[in-house]
Amino acid sequence: MTQSIRVAVSTVILTLRRTESGDAVLALPLVLRTREPFADQWALPGGWLTTAESPVDASARTLSETTGLAPSYLEQLYAFGAVDRSPTRVVSIVYWALLRQDDVDAQSEAHRASGRAPENVRWFDIDDLPSLAFDHAKIIEYALWRLRNKVGYSRVAHGFLPSEFTLADLREAYEAILGKSLDPANFRRQVEASGNLLPTDRFRTGSHRPARLYRYNTDVALADRGPLGPEETSIR
Amino acid sequence: MTQSIRVAVSTVILTLRRTESGDAVLALPLVLRTREPFADQWALPGGWLTTAESPVDASARTLSETTGLAPSYLEQLYAFGAVDRSPTRVVSIVYWALLRQDDVDAQSEAHRASGRAPENVRWFDIDDLPSLAFDHAKIIEYALWRLRNKVGYSRVAHGFLPSEFTLADLREAYEAILGKSLDPANFRRQVEASGNLLPTDRFRTGSHRPARLYRYNTDVALADRGPLGPEETSIR
Repeated sequence: MTQSIRVAVSTVILTLRRTESGDAVLALPLVLRTREPFADQWALPGGWLTTAESPVDASARTLSETTGLAPSYLEQLYAFGAVDRSPTRVVSIVYWALLRQDDVDAQSEAHRASGRAPENVRWFDIDDLPSLAFDHAKIIEYALWRLRNKVGYSRVAHGFLPSEFTLADLREAYEAILGKSLDPANFRRQVEASGNLLPTDRFRTGSHRPARLYRYNTDVALADRGPLGPEETSIR
Repeated sequence: MTQSIRVAVSTVILTLRRTESGDAVLALPLVLRTREPFADQWALPGGWLTTAESPVDASARTLSETTGLAPSYLEQLYAFGAVDRSPTRVVSIVYWALLRQDDVDAQSEAHRASGRAPENVRWFDIDDLPSLAFDHAKIIEYALWRLRNKVGYSRVAHGFLPSEFTLADLREAYEAILGKSLDPANFRRQVEASGNLLPTDRFRTGSHRPARLYRYNTDVALADRGPLGPEETSIR
């Protein structure tokens, strides 16, 4: 049987970056398309699924080729397949990951040094996105919705933070994800009651009064992929 | 560009059915394959995605053709795309839904009466599945894992119940999903504290002492599809 339907992958990589005004905002990398359809418009990193690789491997490959980024875990976001989402019939399997800003900086720098980094990649704050190709605006909106839902019942914000962090760091990540301010005292009570955080003996010192550093309780696995093996869920 | 990758859909339909011994067990419909690959083995209802329909519409169509079932909402479970999951290269987008046993009975009966019901469909209890084609055993295992996870933070068990039910009915559904017995008093405390249930003025009477009927608090939508439209998420 011949099908005139092709399979593509796209990847939503979110990081928390500090603006010049000192705020933390969510940002993601986009690629300026050089050919039709949607030439000269921005799109998520991605490409065609090839015969010899799984969708998650294709996501990792195309992400690495364009941005140099190599997240330790890519989660499947959704398979988008509406009939009219592209001028030709394309089903896109979309993956997503959260990356710490320092990992983004290190991996991007190594990619530039390799001489293989394309010129047409740029990071955008999610509240200042350009016009997007295909249904990629909707895909990003869905990824942000999923992130906001997930932050309520999991340790997803950990993906933005170093191994040790202050409660103010964690609250700042939650505020950027949820797009609203949180009361510091309420936030402290809630995260302490959750049992997810363990206090360390260390403090961050600086211009403010010393703030205790916390780490996540790693008795619970961060990325529980359930019964699926690595061929369906992550990068080998 | 030509891709030798084809796109299929499959559907996992779960219901809670009562065995002859009076227990409630999870069950799902399977289709006996009549051709290669995996001829004479059981598989999930499904088929090829056609050019003019979205994956969720293809799931609804193939499910209806084989089983006569028409769930009001199909949720995307996962896109399975491992290279070796089929003798040829196939990406399967899998949807799932929960159906009440009385809806299953009514829709199956109407399908049989139509004269279009195929002979090769049968329901199986999930603890007594036959040998399955492709990676369908893993897909079912993943659907059950997702259901068990979801029951903890959502009203997913509602999909198995009529609009009014006793706490014993609800506990029985949870026990079938989780595969373990739950303490009746603890269970009552937890669901009452959740705020998800509203007591009615009605009682079920019969051979036992009268049991109060409850309904779900429908202030919260049961199936929150987020920012995705119906072309990606459900049946029109």
